[in-house]
Amino acid sequence: MTYCVGLLLKAGLVLLSDTRTNAGLDNISTYRKMFVFEDPGERVIAMMTAGNLSVTQTTLARLQEAIDDPDATHETSIMRSESMLGVATIVGETLARVTGETRDRMGRNAEAANASLIVAGQRAGGQMRLFLVYPEGNFIEATEDTPYLQIGEHKYGKPILDRVITVDTPLADAKKAALLSMDSTLRSNLSVGMPLDLVVIEKDALRVSQQRRIEAKDEEFAAMSSAWSQALRDAFSQIA
Amino acid sequence: MTYCVGLLLKAGLVLLSDTRTNAGLDNISTYRKMFVFEDPGERVIAMMTAGNLSVTQTTLARLQEAIDDPDATHETSIMRSESMLGVATIVGETLARVTGETRDRMGRNAEAANASLIVAGQRAGGQMRLFLVYPEGNFIEATEDTPYLQIGEHKYGKPILDRVITVDTPLADAKKAALLSMDSTLRSNLSVGMPLDLVVIEKDALRVSQQRRIEAKDEEFAAMSSAWSQALRDAFSQIA
Repeated sequence: MTYCVGLLLKAGLVLLSDTRTNAGLDNISTYRKMFVFEDPGERVIAMMTAGNLSVTQTTLARLQEAIDDPDATHETSIMRSESMLGVATIVGETLARVTGETRDRMGRNAEAANASLIVAGQRAGGQMRLFLVYPEGNFIEATEDTPYLQIGEHKYGKPILDRVITVDTPLADAKKAALLSMDSTLRSNLSVGMPLDLVVIEKDALRVSQQRRIEAKDEEFAAMSSAWSQALRDAFSQIA
Repeated sequence: MTYCVGLLLKAGLVLLSDTRTNAGLDNISTYRKMFVFEDPGERVIAMMTAGNLSVTQTTLARLQEAIDDPDATHETSIMRSESMLGVATIVGETLARVTGETRDRMGRNAEAANASLIVAGQRAGGQMRLFLVYPEGNFIEATEDTPYLQIGEHKYGKPILDRVITVDTPLADAKKAALLSMDSTLRSNLSVGMPLDLVVIEKDALRVSQQRRIEAKDEEFAAMSSAWSQALRDAFSQIA
């Protein structure tokens, strides 16, 4: 399993992913699920992946191959695409192709070849955008009404986002909400695990403003987590 | 969908269920999922149901038929069973039989004939016990380490329980936690809906201590819900 969450706010983008992968409960590993593609000042793209690891790794490898191709065009390379919509389209087509190939190979287990991605970023002259790309390549986009998107184990971490996030939330609060949303998920689902990858992209910066790996022993995260537990218990005892 | 939660505390049992059933998103109804069987001073049993409504209704009807049967024995009637373990066994056998019959009838849709129950109660001279009965009739039991059981849409409401519930939690706090757990679920899943049914059984009372239907317009519940929202937002802004 996995938990990744992306927030699209007026002030910028906040993306947070875990790093746990598992094939059964007795085979867990750590893999990065956060990928950044940057041409500072021109465009910044961040992606997070959930689902079948062979599908997501192959998809990322194909996207990189297309970027490196000297004959790349705006229809093949996410670094040449003319808009974030174009980026999402390329990612969707690549994911759908890899999913199809993998399913063909997997026969009766075809359903396991399931993966989805969150794609976020901004191009010079364009808006910040945040997409969730489905296995078939279609996608949805975050809006003012629903300024966040989740992939993987989304349920445990949703209530806190619903209560505190609006498009006007400042970046510092959005980071805190994403981390608390992850904290609730980590507590309830063993197949979501530390370390975490956090990326913040400020509006119109056109580069990554902050990128941080939060390790299992991160004191700041542990302090926030226990402060939140205590605050919740206090809140619980206060209400009638 | 459904959300039902049962808590087994040193002070007693707290049970809470919603009442929404749905066949698709465009066909929703209100059905009671909380059932009490009481012989005050001798035994008290409460059950909550989740899953396929034809299976749960038929299971409850068969259990009632067995109770009413003049030839009922401790092996057929939950009101004559010698222990709560015996009650859970009868419920499990009945549920498994009804599930099997329904699946036979449903052919390729057999998987939809899925239902589970929470069974709680106490017999004179025995301990309070709380069981979760699976479609195949097997069951698990709440323990000191994990003093609550959930059926239906369990994820949204789990974090609050994990943070505040232990076997030593007083009944008033346990009721509050169950209601807040339900509140989080109601907010996030449309197929869980008001009104709610709440049952409290104090230890050794051998009768229902409190039974209450909480309607959609219940002012006390609405006040608790909005106080909790406010307390969460305050807690969120307090922590660093």
